[in-house]
Amino acid sequence: MAITMYDLAGSEAERRFSPFCWRARMALAHKGLEVETVPWRFTEKDKLPQPNAGRVPVIVDGDRVVHDSTAIAEYLEERYPDRPSLFACETGRGLTRFVQNWTETVLQTGLIGLVLLDIWRHLGPADQAYFRSDREKRFGTTLEEVVRDREARLPAFRAGLDPLRRTVERQQFVCGSAPAYADYIVFGAFQWARAVSDFEVLAADDPLRAWRGRMLDLFDGLARRAPAYGS
Amino acid sequence: MAITMYDLAGSEAERRFSPFCWRARMALAHKGLEVETVPWRFTEKDKLPQPNAGRVPVIVDGDRVVHDSTAIAEYLEERYPDRPSLFACETGRGLTRFVQNWTETVLQTGLIGLVLLDIWRHLGPADQAYFRSDREKRFGTTLEEVVRDREARLPAFRAGLDPLRRTVERQQFVCGSAPAYADYIVFGAFQWARAVSDFEVLAADDPLRAWRGRMLDLFDGLARRAPAYGS
Repeated sequence: MAITMYDLAGSEAERRFSPFCWRARMALAHKGLEVETVPWRFTEKDKLPQPNAGRVPVIVDGDRVVHDSTAIAEYLEERYPDRPSLFACETGRGLTRFVQNWTETVLQTGLIGLVLLDIWRHLGPADQAYFRSDREKRFGTTLEEVVRDREARLPAFRAGLDPLRRTVERQQFVCGSAPAYADYIVFGAFQWARAVSDFEVLAADDPLRAWRGRMLDLFDGLARRAPAYGS
Repeated sequence: MAITMYDLAGSEAERRFSPFCWRARMALAHKGLEVETVPWRFTEKDKLPQPNAGRVPVIVDGDRVVHDSTAIAEYLEERYPDRPSLFACETGRGLTRFVQNWTETVLQTGLIGLVLLDIWRHLGPADQAYFRSDREKRFGTTLEEVVRDREARLPAFRAGLDPLRRTVERQQFVCGSAPAYADYIVFGAFQWARAVSDFEVLAADDPLRAWRGRMLDLFDGLARRAPAYGS
């Protein structure tokens, strides 16, 4: 029986934009597992299977419910040990945490300041009201104000990607010659941006584009086929 | 026969401060290999065995000369496959490159602006003249000017360590429950700073201090026994 995954969606059911859901989606594909996704909106907290933390991804695998992308990756690795590994070895698992922490403190923090308003634009009315109220409280200002000077912040954002850029200039994937979970963590952030925004966060000649293209090609173009902007 | 390693030294022969040499020194210890270090100064380019690129570390292992810390790590891994691995698996090797690129673009770049003048203070007269001329050309200003506002830059430097901080708050080492080469890459930068500077780059309550302490304890306190400042 296929695994069910609750996946954050915009007003269009097929527009999936959560970076954490993309991590889980790619991890499931890496393991070669069938998945049926259920579009879920911010304001549908009562529609999630128990237990959950009011957020997605949540997966249902037989009688197991697992929430939180990190817990899902650990679960898949333990439950399906004979499928391709997400971490390859214990050192790989440890180092993946560093990539995750870089992604969450540098990459995603930078991206949110570029695409926050574009997320709002892709939501239905109920989610728009929730999202604006919640995020404006968090940022202490309006969505419009958060992204207002995004053009000016772009050079610093791009410079901050140097550790990633240097890595994939010299090897095919963050994890080396083949992708694994750390690639999916980083890719989830880029897929989040391109799912909701036509604001191109990478310069035309950025070597990161080639890596992003390789990620979009994986699993028969799983992420490339999803509704998104640009390349 | 012990491996010989040419190791950057200050005016005191025992003060070893190159971050790249510390990577190699820790890698050799990780492999359990005997090493005899030769103190080497910036202005002794003609004293290095061939081939070299005018920099250290350079190691001599029997009739093999290997230079550049990355090449040395690769060499040790290939030449001594039955000793503890520096990368653990191919994914570990790939991810180690990301940590290296982060260390070189964020951590070391930040540290140089804090301790550059302190390096100069620990050199003999010939090296001082070379170092000042070379680095002032590179930075386009005096050594004194580079570090002048270091107190003001400290908060941003420390904030930039968040990916590392979060990682070692939740696991013992960058590589997980046991250290490997990625830990030595990051540690080399901190050891470089503490070898030449009494300017404490980490706040008193920074969780990174506990990790640095664990690194200093490795291999019977190899790095802790070396001349350095502070904890």
